[in-house]
Amino acid sequence: MAKEIKTIGVLTSGGDAPGMNAAIRAVVRKALSRGLKVKGIYKGYNGLLNEEIKDMTARDVSDIISRGGTVLYTARCAEFRTPEGQARGAEVCRKHGIDGLVVIGGDGSFAGAQKLAALGINTIGIPGTIDLDIACTEYTIGFDTAVNTAMEAIDKVRDTSTSHERCSIIEVMGRGAGYIALYCGIANGAEDILLPEKYDYDEQKLINNIIENRKRGKKHHIIINAEGIGHSASMARRIEAATGMETRATILGHMQRGGSPTCTDRVYASMMGSYAVDLLAEGKTNRVVGYRNGEFTDFDIDEALAMQKSISEYMYDVSKALSI
Amino acid sequence: MAKEIKTIGVLTSGGDAPGMNAAIRAVVRKALSRGLKVKGIYKGYNGLLNEEIKDMTARDVSDIISRGGTVLYTARCAEFRTPEGQARGAEVCRKHGIDGLVVIGGDGSFAGAQKLAALGINTIGIPGTIDLDIACTEYTIGFDTAVNTAMEAIDKVRDTSTSHERCSIIEVMGRGAGYIALYCGIANGAEDILLPEKYDYDEQKLINNIIENRKRGKKHHIIINAEGIGHSASMARRIEAATGMETRATILGHMQRGGSPTCTDRVYASMMGSYAVDLLAEGKTNRVVGYRNGEFTDFDIDEALAMQKSISEYMYDVSKALSI
Amino acid sequence: MAKEIKTIGVLTSGGDAPGMNAAIRAVVRKALSRGLKVKGIYKGYNGLLNEEIKDMTARDVSDIISRGGTVLYTARCAEFRTPEGQARGAEVCRKHGIDGLVVIGGDGSFAGAQKLAALGINTIGIPGTIDLDIACTEYTIGFDTAVNTAMEAIDKVRDTSTSHERCSIIEVMGRGAGYIALYCGIANGAEDILLPEKYDYDEQKLINNIIENRKRGKKHHIIINAEGIGHSASMARRIEAATGMETRATILGHMQRGGSPTCTDRVYASMMGSYAVDLLAEGKTNRVVGYRNGEFTDFDIDEALAMQKSISEYMYDVSKALSI
Amino acid sequence: MAKEIKTIGVLTSGGDAPGMNAAIRAVVRKALSRGLKVKGIYKGYNGLLNEEIKDMTARDVSDIISRGGTVLYTARCAEFRTPEGQARGAEVCRKHGIDGLVVIGGDGSFAGAQKLAALGINTIGIPGTIDLDIACTEYTIGFDTAVNTAMEAIDKVRDTSTSHERCSIIEVMGRGAGYIALYCGIANGAEDILLPEKYDYDEQKLINNIIENRKRGKKHHIIINAEGIGHSASMARRIEAATGMETRATILGHMQRGGSPTCTDRVYASMMGSYAVDLLAEGKTNRVVGYRNGEFTDFDIDEALAMQKSISEYMYDVSKALSI
Repeated sequence: MAKEIKTIGVLTSGGDAPGMNAAIRAVVRKALSRGLKVKGIYKGYNGLLNEEIKDMTARDVSDIISRGGTVLYTARCAEFRTPEGQARGAEVCRKHGIDGLVVIGGDGSFAGAQKLAALGINTIGIPGTIDLDIACTEYTIGFDTAVNTAMEAIDKVRDTSTSHERCSIIEVMGRGAGYIALYCGIANGAEDILLPEKYDYDEQKLINNIIENRKRGKKHHIIINAEGIGHSASMARRIEAATGMETRATILGHMQRGGSPTCTDRVYASMMGSYAVDLLAEGKTNRVVGYRNGEFTDFDIDEALAMQKSISEYMYDVSKALSI
Repeated sequence: MAKEIKTIGVLTSGGDAPGMNAAIRAVVRKALSRGLKVKGIYKGYNGLLNEEIKDMTARDVSDIISRGGTVLYTARCAEFRTPEGQARGAEVCRKHGIDGLVVIGGDGSFAGAQKLAALGINTIGIPGTIDLDIACTEYTIGFDTAVNTAMEAIDKVRDTSTSHERCSIIEVMGRGAGYIALYCGIANGAEDILLPEKYDYDEQKLINNIIENRKRGKKHHIIINAEGIGHSASMARRIEAATGMETRATILGHMQRGGSPTCTDRVYASMMGSYAVDLLAEGKTNRVVGYRNGEFTDFDIDEALAMQKSISEYMYDVSKALSI
Repeated sequence: MAKEIKTIGVLTSGGDAPGMNAAIRAVVRKALSRGLKVKGIYKGYNGLLNEEIKDMTARDVSDIISRGGTVLYTARCAEFRTPEGQARGAEVCRKHGIDGLVVIGGDGSFAGAQKLAALGINTIGIPGTIDLDIACTEYTIGFDTAVNTAMEAIDKVRDTSTSHERCSIIEVMGRGAGYIALYCGIANGAEDILLPEKYDYDEQKLINNIIENRKRGKKHHIIINAEGIGHSASMARRIEAATGMETRATILGHMQRGGSPTCTDRVYASMMGSYAVDLLAEGKTNRVVGYRNGEFTDFDIDEALAMQKSISEYMYDVSKALSI
Repeated sequence: MAKEIKTIGVLTSGGDAPGMNAAIRAVVRKALSRGLKVKGIYKGYNGLLNEEIKDMTARDVSDIISRGGTVLYTARCAEFRTPEGQARGAEVCRKHGIDGLVVIGGDGSFAGAQKLAALGINTIGIPGTIDLDIACTEYTIGFDTAVNTAMEAIDKVRDTSTSHERCSIIEVMGRGAGYIALYCGIANGAEDILLPEKYDYDEQKLINNIIENRKRGKKHHIIINAEGIGHSASMARRIEAATGMETRATILGHMQRGGSPTCTDRVYASMMGSYAVDLLAEGKTNRVVGYRNGEFTDFDIDEALAMQKSISEYMYDVSKALSI
């Protein structure tokens, strides 16, 4: 028989993402509206081990839906990667009466959730990462805001790039996943997109493309570079030397993690937070919430962590066709 | 055997929507990249009848992806609703060598596309409307931008509403479809959402809710009112009289139709424009492009026009649970 | 000899304005850094009379500089317009040890400050109003944010106005002062600006201007209408009837009062809050802070309230010359 | 007797700045409204020497007031720094009938304008630079937009900085002038501001300040670093090593040069463009337009170039007092 849940804990873990506050608010209020108690755990698994835990009321999450960051803070926790740390985590949950736990974070955070579930704490993961690099879901909290932040910044770089008839290399986040780069590439009408998923990086091809584009009358050349592909500043120097076109590099950096969440991030994060509480109330554990094929759904964490995600070849091809 | 297409025409029709320019750009460039010619038809079906038609090059659509509105302009056209008008439209297409046509607009515009298809002009519709009220697709061009514009405006109203501890009624667009209202309702943490799809509008219930919320310590009361539900200003006067809480109405109006498109609107509109050209190139006609179950797809226009769309009861229920 | 101040009170009064939080934060932190105590008075003079007063620490104003509205709330207070109310206000100040008071608001709020000063409470006014209608100063808190909010909304209306080749009437705030209308008129490239300060409102002239502009190839016609000049919706109907150009009215409303303050509003409000504390620390009373001729300065409240402000004829003439 | 002007040329030179388009539009339309002809010179002095010159109509500047960058493009021009280049520039002006010239740019561009004036071409400079580093004026085109762009980006970095309880170093533009850094420092509530104008840069003091702030309960530590003070990334590594607080560097870069101009930049740039035409029409030459003591005015270029600008000590002191 499914365990009956009385008190839900909620924490955010790993890199923060805009919309996490909307998810926290949804967990708190949906749980309260179902007659459950809710406790906020501060600073991720770290705060769990340190017992930084507080009761949450409906008013504690007033006015947070529009704010970036996470009111519960977040941190990495080496200790929680050990069996001892995990055992202590489960113990702290029991001590505080937390029989259901919602973990908002990425794959690393879900690995922790999996361990707690195995130790008898009913646990549900919600995908929160700006990188969209979680295989079981088409939506992760923060991606939509991050990609709009990056796009708006690149629009601005493009203005000055055009005025000076310059080449601009803009480095966006996403070390292992090129979604931000691919979306910005299309949305900003970039001439080239460098993705970790494509193994065809060839600087000479890039240089030839710049030279051809100038001949076709293009006033600038925008290259979107996913973090980790190469060193943008030295790439800029080599390109300028080879093409004679003034070339500048911009690394957007941590601003992509912040800001008031977009409507999609607020709404979908709210739905996922609410959905996670429903799962716990039904006695489910070791599940991760996803959005797939147009609806909210859930997956076994073990299966979710085993899935692979690839980037859309079709989108990449379209980006190429539209950059003429 | 499928007709081979040589020249594609493109027009925007009905109310404009942010992202239409991204779709136009995609149609033009994807067609050129496939070796086709492209002609822009200005001011919708009106411009078709008046032969306001120009050749489009890749440079003609430079720098438009980030702009609101439609560079092809749009208009209503009574004459095109008559069989004579439609016959002349098909004739003008033939005169200008347009054997494939992309129509970006809403259901009314697709009805025109259907007629042209029946008259032998291969025609594809792309859903462009901020109202999201096209049944065959989960995405329509402009909704994402409109809902973010509305949400950001409501965030601002909420600031002043809180400072004055006021009730605010905010009227958003969507006469026949409450999606903008429902999304904003969740994203802005509104206390009440009035939707055309819900028949339970009861001012006394609303008033009771306001009085209860004040008791629970809420500093403001936000009501999102979908256009057409009721007269916001007189509703405000009645609510103020009944609750003693200062109440103000704001009608967001046409600003919701404009503005630089969001990343989703730029990317999805680009994908749809590209997809429409692929359909024409494959000899397809009388189809409308859609986004469903996580992928771009297409439907017969006749079937698409016959589909019904309903608002998500689950989302509405969540909005209620989270407004405590 | 100047009275030595030990405890400063701060309140916001009248309509809220973005930047008020920056001023509150500056008053609190500048006072603390000078070794003074600070008390926040909630809901304006109303809260003074009701003794809604709390000690403020540096942490109480953390993270508020970027927020719209006022964390101290604001309200109108009929009782404080009576000599009895004012006497009680001074008494409450004394009871709570408040010997210096900073009042952030408009002319009406300064009239209250004047009375408290006469009753022996050292009082300094800071101009906070989006309308810029305070004669002694070229800057008031909130104007810069409000005018940018209005301008961005009008940019969006303009997109759709152009796409439909429409005339748009946009009503902005400023019942007695046309600064928002004049600035937006220039910044949005409006064809006509209707100001309370100009007595030449002549609908026939407006109509003739629209007809001429269409002939000159203009794709839209934007009219900025300061609140109170006329009823925008009926004006739109008459103009459409007379010109045959589709005409729509938008009333921007309360969104102009909210939103995260601009850099100017955050910086200048911070400077004014700091300056007000310096004045109190020097034993000054019955002064209002102003920005004039490129520097922060202060005026006697009595003199400040007697000054007249007129709108710049030169700016108005330039707006006309540039709308061709 | 003052030379009568018939044809005005206009060019943008040096780094681009948001609002330059508003100034171009104002020059064009004000000149046309005074019965003068106007010619646009593309790519700064470079385009003058290459005779990239076109007639401008009122419609050529439609819809540009809201756009970043400069529709006339801009470039550096080594040749124009030589007497031969300057002589040829004056000759090209005469050949094209340009008897008055408006140069929008910074001090370097004004030095060129000075030479042309000496060679008999009536020339007026308009200060266009995001750095605010022109001594004769309190306003330069683009500063207000740039500082708001930087501030909004820093607000986002701050969100994630707070969530992770991190120290963030954010490098803003302004190699020789710390205005952007100082304004952002106040507007973003930064804990430390590093300015080129202050010679007290002392990393140990910075480190001590971080340690003290943590003790006082601050959840993040924001350092605004004006470009050129030091290498942000290595500074971050040293600070992290010394304080144990996770520290990240962000270089905002070229996005600060672009974007739709703010209301102030649109309005003031329009006023300055209009004012420059008035000066030429009155027969003035070798003048630069300024904004000082609350009004638009003009200075002799020779005198303007000799003036010195210092940063406000008072603002810097306030920034310190408010960062507690």
